[in-house]
Amino acid sequence: MLRVLQYDGDSDAVSEVSIDEMDFHKLKWLDCYGPNKEEVEEVRKIINIPENEFDRCIDEDERPSVTKLEHFSLIIFKSPFKSEKHSSTTSFSMLISNNLLVTFRRRELEGLSSIWNLEEKSRKKVFKKGTSYIAYQISEKIMDDYFKILDDIEKDINIIEKDVFHNPDKKTVMKIFSLRKTLVYFHKSLSTNRDVVSSIDKEYAEKIDPSQIKNFRYVYDDIVQLIDMVATYRDILTSSLDIYLSSVSNNLNIIMKRMTALGSLVLVPTFITGLYGMNFRFMPEITWKYGYIFAWLLIIGSIIFLFSYFKKKDWF
Amino acid sequence: MLRVLQYDGDSDAVSEVSIDEMDFHKLKWLDCYGPNKEEVEEVRKIINIPENEFDRCIDEDERPSVTKLEHFSLIIFKSPFKSEKHSSTTSFSMLISNNLLVTFRRRELEGLSSIWNLEEKSRKKVFKKGTSYIAYQISEKIMDDYFKILDDIEKDINIIEKDVFHNPDKKTVMKIFSLRKTLVYFHKSLSTNRDVVSSIDKEYAEKIDPSQIKNFRYVYDDIVQLIDMVATYRDILTSSLDIYLSSVSNNLNIIMKRMTALGSLVLVPTFITGLYGMNFRFMPEITWKYGYIFAWLLIIGSIIFLFSYFKKKDWF
Amino acid sequence: MLRVLQYDGDSDAVSEVSIDEMDFHKLKWLDCYGPNKEEVEEVRKIINIPENEFDRCIDEDERPSVTKLEHFSLIIFKSPFKSEKHSSTTSFSMLISNNLLVTFRRRELEGLSSIWNLEEKSRKKVFKKGTSYIAYQISEKIMDDYFKILDDIEKDINIIEKDVFHNPDKKTVMKIFSLRKTLVYFHKSLSTNRDVVSSIDKEYAEKIDPSQIKNFRYVYDDIVQLIDMVATYRDILTSSLDIYLSSVSNNLNIIMKRMTALGSLVLVPTFITGLYGMNFRFMPEITWKYGYIFAWLLIIGSIIFLFSYFKKKDWF
Amino acid sequence: MLRVLQYDGDSDAVSEVSIDEMDFHKLKWLDCYGPNKEEVEEVRKIINIPENEFDRCIDEDERPSVTKLEHFSLIIFKSPFKSEKHSSTTSFSMLISNNLLVTFRRRELEGLSSIWNLEEKSRKKVFKKGTSYIAYQISEKIMDDYFKILDDIEKDINIIEKDVFHNPDKKTVMKIFSLRKTLVYFHKSLSTNRDVVSSIDKEYAEKIDPSQIKNFRYVYDDIVQLIDMVATYRDILTSSLDIYLSSVSNNLNIIMKRMTALGSLVLVPTFITGLYGMNFRFMPEITWKYGYIFAWLLIIGSIIFLFSYFKKKDWF
Amino acid sequence: MLRVLQYDGDSDAVSEVSIDEMDFHKLKWLDCYGPNKEEVEEVRKIINIPENEFDRCIDEDERPSVTKLEHFSLIIFKSPFKSEKHSSTTSFSMLISNNLLVTFRRRELEGLSSIWNLEEKSRKKVFKKGTSYIAYQISEKIMDDYFKILDDIEKDINIIEKDVFHNPDKKTVMKIFSLRKTLVYFHKSLSTNRDVVSSIDKEYAEKIDPSQIKNFRYVYDDIVQLIDMVATYRDILTSSLDIYLSSVSNNLNIIMKRMTALGSLVLVPTFITGLYGMNFRFMPEITWKYGYIFAWLLIIGSIIFLFSYFKKKDWF
Repeated sequence: MLRVLQYDGDSDAVSEVSIDEMDFHKLKWLDCYGPNKEEVEEVRKIINIPENEFDRCIDEDERPSVTKLEHFSLIIFKSPFKSEKHSSTTSFSMLISNNLLVTFRRRELEGLSSIWNLEEKSRKKVFKKGTSYIAYQISEKIMDDYFKILDDIEKDINIIEKDVFHNPDKKTVMKIFSLRKTLVYFHKSLSTNRDVVSSIDKEYAEKIDPSQIKNFRYVYDDIVQLIDMVATYRDILTSSLDIYLSSVSNNLNIIMKRMTALGSLVLVPTFITGLYGMNFRFMPEITWKYGYIFAWLLIIGSIIFLFSYFKKKDWF
Repeated sequence: MLRVLQYDGDSDAVSEVSIDEMDFHKLKWLDCYGPNKEEVEEVRKIINIPENEFDRCIDEDERPSVTKLEHFSLIIFKSPFKSEKHSSTTSFSMLISNNLLVTFRRRELEGLSSIWNLEEKSRKKVFKKGTSYIAYQISEKIMDDYFKILDDIEKDINIIEKDVFHNPDKKTVMKIFSLRKTLVYFHKSLSTNRDVVSSIDKEYAEKIDPSQIKNFRYVYDDIVQLIDMVATYRDILTSSLDIYLSSVSNNLNIIMKRMTALGSLVLVPTFITGLYGMNFRFMPEITWKYGYIFAWLLIIGSIIFLFSYFKKKDWF
Repeated sequence: MLRVLQYDGDSDAVSEVSIDEMDFHKLKWLDCYGPNKEEVEEVRKIINIPENEFDRCIDEDERPSVTKLEHFSLIIFKSPFKSEKHSSTTSFSMLISNNLLVTFRRRELEGLSSIWNLEEKSRKKVFKKGTSYIAYQISEKIMDDYFKILDDIEKDINIIEKDVFHNPDKKTVMKIFSLRKTLVYFHKSLSTNRDVVSSIDKEYAEKIDPSQIKNFRYVYDDIVQLIDMVATYRDILTSSLDIYLSSVSNNLNIIMKRMTALGSLVLVPTFITGLYGMNFRFMPEITWKYGYIFAWLLIIGSIIFLFSYFKKKDWF
Repeated sequence: MLRVLQYDGDSDAVSEVSIDEMDFHKLKWLDCYGPNKEEVEEVRKIINIPENEFDRCIDEDERPSVTKLEHFSLIIFKSPFKSEKHSSTTSFSMLISNNLLVTFRRRELEGLSSIWNLEEKSRKKVFKKGTSYIAYQISEKIMDDYFKILDDIEKDINIIEKDVFHNPDKKTVMKIFSLRKTLVYFHKSLSTNRDVVSSIDKEYAEKIDPSQIKNFRYVYDDIVQLIDMVATYRDILTSSLDIYLSSVSNNLNIIMKRMTALGSLVLVPTFITGLYGMNFRFMPEITWKYGYIFAWLLIIGSIIFLFSYFKKKDWF
Repeated sequence: MLRVLQYDGDSDAVSEVSIDEMDFHKLKWLDCYGPNKEEVEEVRKIINIPENEFDRCIDEDERPSVTKLEHFSLIIFKSPFKSEKHSSTTSFSMLISNNLLVTFRRRELEGLSSIWNLEEKSRKKVFKKGTSYIAYQISEKIMDDYFKILDDIEKDINIIEKDVFHNPDKKTVMKIFSLRKTLVYFHKSLSTNRDVVSSIDKEYAEKIDPSQIKNFRYVYDDIVQLIDMVATYRDILTSSLDIYLSSVSNNLNIIMKRMTALGSLVLVPTFITGLYGMNFRFMPEITWKYGYIFAWLLIIGSIIFLFSYFKKKDWF
């Protein structure tokens, strides 16, 4: 999908136009979402950059970087996205020149959309400050997406922390692994994003308006904090896994304890039966009228005694 | 609740006044504690900042930051508070202009109150140095609150360290989890606070008197130390959890050992009864007059022998 | 193997020439791959550096460093390579003067080859910018090799993470150890590479064109990120090993539980047989016509009862 | 206890004088050790600082800091001390003006005493360089105290490392906990000390002679190293605790193994007795003359066989 | 042992001379190895430094540092050495003045000797550049000694990693502890060495020729890398210990599993014997001619069945 927002300085208005209506002298934001072949060709004609660089723009797995091109600065970030199974990250490119910003993405990115869909008044304010400022706003919002997803992950972790202790099962572990994988991807993405922002700060992205560079420091601070949060959550997940493993092992041991206790309950009666199964000629109980009942009383008594003893010792 | 402290430079006096008595030319501190709708409206009229920024001021979950507004610098910190269950953190905002300081909070904050309730003489001294200095003093006291709560946590940890070893039970673990969660929140809050103070140091908060910025470095040092303490305590809690898990597993194993030992005590007598339950025609003991008593002696003897053997080996 | 690429500034062409065709005034890249004795002698005559330094160039285990020689800067990097068993790193040297770049290596390095085999047009572009730029390009590509191999390692780790949990066996552990060893070597190699690049940045490598030094900062950023990835992967492997050990121990415990449960199933019937093995004179069941069948019913009933009880408690 | 050392520049001599003999124009070191009420009053009259600041000077739990007072710089450090049970830290304050140094402490501090008790010649040298230099010397010596106590702790750790492996008992664990607590306190104290020294380096302590500030960098280096040592020792203690827990669990398992082996020894003989306890009419062994002896041989033979089998397999 | 190398600038020759032949105007390196009392006295007369400083020079446990003396800079490093049991570190001092370098050591240090024993030509080159350069060369070589010993340790660790998994025994653990102790000492020594080099870099060692200071940065880089390697190896050893403990515990559990399986094998036959030991009057098998043989078949059949079942389930 291709769509264009164009800012008319004279009338101070931002309006969505078609590709053909793009005016060279006006400020434009061309958003290129999961483009098909024809759209790719169309865009290529407009921006005219080397083929390999263009391929990098639309490759979802491209590593974040800042690249100098003839007429553009190419900034690639990793943005988070939520899928039904687990969150991950996707590459997202911005081509910035003085009056054209092109964004490439393969997925719906909330952060980008929130800028695109700003109400008229705020949108004018943002566009007035130029392409660099729009790029900054998008970057900022994308980091906000990380914060939002991490908040969700924190909620999941709180549930997991209770589960591993109270009812540990394999599903919990699968959840832990899945979250941990997400966090590893986030860590990788964020640390490369940090390098990108740091490169911008060192003015490697020439088309970024120097007066706007200062803003990117806020993005930098956010990223540093995000990386720290990711580390904290990974830490908690690791210790949750430890607790899970211990819980499982402990539950198993408690079952063993109970079974051993049950077994022990039977051993003493068995001994008693063995006792009166002996063949001695001179055994008073054998010929005693109440011998059999006496044996039963012994057996029942021993079970009751052992049972209450084990109960008292909390062995059941 | 709204309340105002106003400093009269001429008479060199600080006095609590009503909102309507606020004098534009005097230095004022307006404290806005859990404001209701009417109070919110009243304050909005006075300070006149964009609605979305105002909402951020009174949102308890707002992320700490420094924001430039037209007439104010908005500084948001995370402050700790104690609840009956466990300590957590709450957002706390300061709007600073040259002669007006507005503080927003949802909870009773000891640090802030300690400045508000200063004795007359000290209060004058603080107000004389301007809004930036009051803001610094409040920040400093809020970090002191962290220190106090961490001292309490240290005491709890000392108790836990003994408990996990001597009488480990699930309550101890719940306590560990609760403390760890508190520490995670503290870590997050403190590291964002640190970024805020570092932004102040870089003069991003324009309304902060540059001559006062140096003071915030003390706040910065405190935060760094607090983060370090939080890390240390989390470390200790993690290893306490390890010890708890090992203790539980060990106690279980000791019970298993005892039960197995008890079982073993019965096995040998059972073998003896089996022995004399055999049906051989030629078994001297069977027909022997004292055979039965001999068997009993064997049984009792074997139990005594095994029992003392196990005792000696410390198997009970 | 010796091979030479020579750039003719006049005709703006890069062509592969023999050693004897090397022209003193033209820009040359001499690639020296696993040289035999004669080749070593040949190269020594051309570059004329002290014997011990030359030995360092062709030693596969030489530590990365930057060395100043009379006519050259000697830069030694560690490059990764893949072998059938596990990936490791090999030393790789670059001797740089104004118009001669000599590369020494013991192994096929993808990164280096990708520069050598560039298509005509791109190759000209690279050579035009001088030996320092070629050296930068090679360094960059070698770091890309690390990224590629780490991607493969990530895939292996994903498989391992599933294996340790679902079907843990010794082969998985061997794989973990092998990967961990690779990562340790990578860590060592990368951290020395980082020092080398940092030395270049401090202008210790005098023959590197100062205008090209800035480029090496990209290499530096890549290395920092690689080191971070290596640390993350080592972390995951360590916790995988923990899970493996716990899984093995748990599987063992589950078998113990089952066996104990099986044993318990037999204990009660054995008690019943003991019961009717007693020799009391007055035991009604003994003389009862259906006594034997009654005993069997008791035995079968107890087994069914215990079995379903254990099943319900999930002890099997 | 109050005591004063006074340096007479004219006669170039340091002598211990009483409080009343203190000469305003001479360089003085007033040491205030665990002062009682009268002594506190006496000192207060001399130095004349605000009451709350004075209270901080003599509070043993005061957090290390640098404070500017009207006539003094107040530097508070945490110093280590050894008690019979375990080492801990105590606050120690220095009030520094141009020609008066006041030290407050609650405990005997070796480092401080070593400066006080210097031989005449060295003492003169130290006093000649002024109060800042004395303060530096005391700081340096106090860090030396940390080194000494850490050396003792290292010796304790070496013993513990052997104990946890060879004869693990609860006393060892108590020792580990006690040492770890000491190290946590040391860590906290040292990291705040570091901040103090770093503040001195930034010239926040105005009364410290700028030409002496450089010296405090040695103190800084020492502290950094101490913090590193504390971290290393905590690491070792943590892994010692792991080993202790594993040792205990292993010892328990070995006992279980032995008991299970003993139990198994009895099971086969019991089966044999059961065999000949069967009531079949046609059992040749039963009526055989040597049947009983044959059974015994079987029993003894099975025990010997199993015993040697278990021995060979190292199951005992 | 005392020995002197003296460089004659006129004849450009380095020659070993006796103490008495030392020429004030020539460049000299006095090496003082494990000096006895007379030698100590002799050296003291030559260098004339305060007694306590001299004692620090020859104390093997002295902490590394840079000290300014009247005519010398005193640099103390920790050098590694290999003993038959395990490697450790020893203090090593260099007194540097413009034309005299004195080295004190208690042990044979390979790094130092390699400089002393340089071939004539290289030795002249080194001496020509002055005492600071010799000192740098010795420092560099001493760090090389660390690299060599760490290479040996890496080999030991590779062996240990296999041993803990395949045949874990107490010797392996002793080896782990011994290596870990060595690494702790190395870490301490290296981090203090780093501080020393960093002090040299800050020009605290006044007698070091400023033009040579740059060289020490190479030493600094080496130390940083060594510290990193030490950390990596300690990490691996810690996880090796974990694996050892788990291996031991697992081996024990496997034995338990086998013994329990063996015990279970006997339980069913015992039940069968109990069955036919019952005394019911009406039991068809008892009076059946082939009853006894039938019982044996049952017993053998049950053993075969259980055995193959356990085998199939891999319980043996």
